[in-house]
Amino acid sequence: MDNFEFYNPVKIVFGKGTIAQLSSLVPANRKLLLTYGGGSIKQNGVYDQVKQALAGRTVFEFGGIEANPRYETLMKATQLAREKQVDMLLAVGGGSVLDGTKFIALAAGYQKGDPWDILAQHAAPEHALPLGCVMTLPATGSEANMFSVVSRESTHEKLAFAHPLAFPQFSIIDPETTYTLPERQAANGVVDAFAHVMEQYMTFPAHAPLQDRQAEALLATLIEAGPQILQQPRNYNLRATVCWCAAQALNGVIACGVPQDWTTHMIGHEITALYGLDHAQTLAVIMPAVWRHQLPGKAEKLAQYARRIWTISEGEDLASRAIDKTEAFFRSLGLKTRLSEYGIGADRFEEIAGRFERRGLRLGEHQAIGKKEVVEILNLCLQSPPK
Amino acid sequence: MDNFEFYNPVKIVFGKGTIAQLSSLVPANRKLLLTYGGGSIKQNGVYDQVKQALAGRTVFEFGGIEANPRYETLMKATQLAREKQVDMLLAVGGGSVLDGTKFIALAAGYQKGDPWDILAQHAAPEHALPLGCVMTLPATGSEANMFSVVSRESTHEKLAFAHPLAFPQFSIIDPETTYTLPERQAANGVVDAFAHVMEQYMTFPAHAPLQDRQAEALLATLIEAGPQILQQPRNYNLRATVCWCAAQALNGVIACGVPQDWTTHMIGHEITALYGLDHAQTLAVIMPAVWRHQLPGKAEKLAQYARRIWTISEGEDLASRAIDKTEAFFRSLGLKTRLSEYGIGADRFEEIAGRFERRGLRLGEHQAIGKKEVVEILNLCLQSPPK
Repeated sequence: MDNFEFYNPVKIVFGKGTIAQLSSLVPANRKLLLTYGGGSIKQNGVYDQVKQALAGRTVFEFGGIEANPRYETLMKATQLAREKQVDMLLAVGGGSVLDGTKFIALAAGYQKGDPWDILAQHAAPEHALPLGCVMTLPATGSEANMFSVVSRESTHEKLAFAHPLAFPQFSIIDPETTYTLPERQAANGVVDAFAHVMEQYMTFPAHAPLQDRQAEALLATLIEAGPQILQQPRNYNLRATVCWCAAQALNGVIACGVPQDWTTHMIGHEITALYGLDHAQTLAVIMPAVWRHQLPGKAEKLAQYARRIWTISEGEDLASRAIDKTEAFFRSLGLKTRLSEYGIGADRFEEIAGRFERRGLRLGEHQAIGKKEVVEILNLCLQSPPK
Repeated sequence: MDNFEFYNPVKIVFGKGTIAQLSSLVPANRKLLLTYGGGSIKQNGVYDQVKQALAGRTVFEFGGIEANPRYETLMKATQLAREKQVDMLLAVGGGSVLDGTKFIALAAGYQKGDPWDILAQHAAPEHALPLGCVMTLPATGSEANMFSVVSRESTHEKLAFAHPLAFPQFSIIDPETTYTLPERQAANGVVDAFAHVMEQYMTFPAHAPLQDRQAEALLATLIEAGPQILQQPRNYNLRATVCWCAAQALNGVIACGVPQDWTTHMIGHEITALYGLDHAQTLAVIMPAVWRHQLPGKAEKLAQYARRIWTISEGEDLASRAIDKTEAFFRSLGLKTRLSEYGIGADRFEEIAGRFERRGLRLGEHQAIGKKEVVEILNLCLQSPPK
């Protein structure tokens, strides 16, 4: 087991009717900026619940934060936060709204230059606006961590940052707010959470049996509950289970003391930036290809996963069968698992792979994946899909 | 799944050589009170590592905090903390030292009356001294939570409190410090952590499949690694695994949204208070008896535990066989599972049971265990032990 630090001060407020607790979670004297996305919160009643809980407070609003939140949009919100001198941010929506709001929180107080440097140069802000959130989409786990991913339209880039000032002070998760999610978003969320677990699990054995089993607890539960929420969208316990899985998948616990991969996410971000695929759509395509490409190094963990999660009995090809099962799981949720199914060919593969090289990044738990390997992985995404 | 709140701001610093990080974890201008137990830290090198990391700081010391830390002892330390006007506490040792130090932290700033009221009356202190710890004994999980248990010699009472001001700011866990633990303490620690998981798990199905599997991850890992540390006391990965299990067992995660029991601990505390048995010794005796007494209500979870943890194939008596397996596990660690094996008879059972009644407490996940049931459970602890 590797040495590690674990710190996560987010207060999670979970359950039915918890949005009303905003009235006590937000100090009365705060001047708030409420951020949200395309407006679904105005249709599903969440906006009204939030406004009711905050009655009597000074609340400015910034709507229209898009999926894969854009730097260009977020800088407008940052401008508004500065102008109105707000002293707290409240993100209401999914991971994109919250990720964007984390960036606004840091950008608002960043004086040393262009806030894009927080993403591109890992510039460290010294202070930030405090933020809270009402999370309405189980997927990114952003409600339980200090991570954020932001895209830049002008350069077709999608970059991530991590900073302790980006921890939400509180995150309200009311599973009932997810009842009206479109099926595609609900399925995407399950795949996203599942992929987060896998990036922290599917590497090599590292003498961390508890962390392995904690990761497997999440995998087994997502495989069990994920498809069911599509059939029973108003089943509270199923929704609550998926919400809690998403938060637990990326709150840092299962990363303690173990190697991590994140190749799938890194390549996936480039696909989203260039072609506009949903984040989870890219994960369902890239992950099986990464595993097939990295089969020798990942064989032992793939076999453990095969036995414990898919109860595949012994055999020579445990690892490949586990990959097939995973692909079938993604497809059962309605996602495709080949780039070719999205009409994407090989023409920009060199460009994508070159981006990591230019940033000086090598991928994978051994940093063994360079430009050549990224192109090979992308080519595996063009093979015929399983029947 | 029930509504819940989760908040745990403890910074965990885990791994080899981490005691040296005290120099950055403790602000340079703090006036410290270092608390410890019977002096084993002076034999195993931990004390020297701590003093070296804190070289140049103002450090007062209070040693001699005993197992099942006593109010009488802790009030002396509180007096010293007040006299010396220290502004931070550093507990170095096991759960008793840390539990005691949590009490000192709260008692030092408590002005409203006798600090015993924090335990006996759930009096809420308004401020406390900040505290950190170096945890050298995986058992109580105190390093990862806001709980503390304190005994009072004059009244033979052992009471618990929970308060957010009792969260350590940081907890250093270096598994190498556990290499020299006496076998009895190491075994006790495994049983204590195991019992913590069970108090949050062995109730009734509550539509919380993730929490169930997270608890089972801990149980399976403790069953696997626990006996091995007795055979290989200097195996780093095994020691690290048990240390991490103990911290994760009682950090609040597996309690989220599920019913809890704690009958075993409540009765166990009384046995320790009256007869001086080790905490874990009481748990190994009481827990099987509680389960046997509460078999109908717990049958469904016991059967799940039998199938998932002990891979017992189907049968009519899954639940009883799981209890037998658990008892055998405790005995394999060298613990006894009957009060009669400690020479304790029924003479004070009524007195013990009466204590809960006097405090207005009913026990169990349904508060269905009153005075009569406590006596019945204690009587089950007198049956002949398994062969």
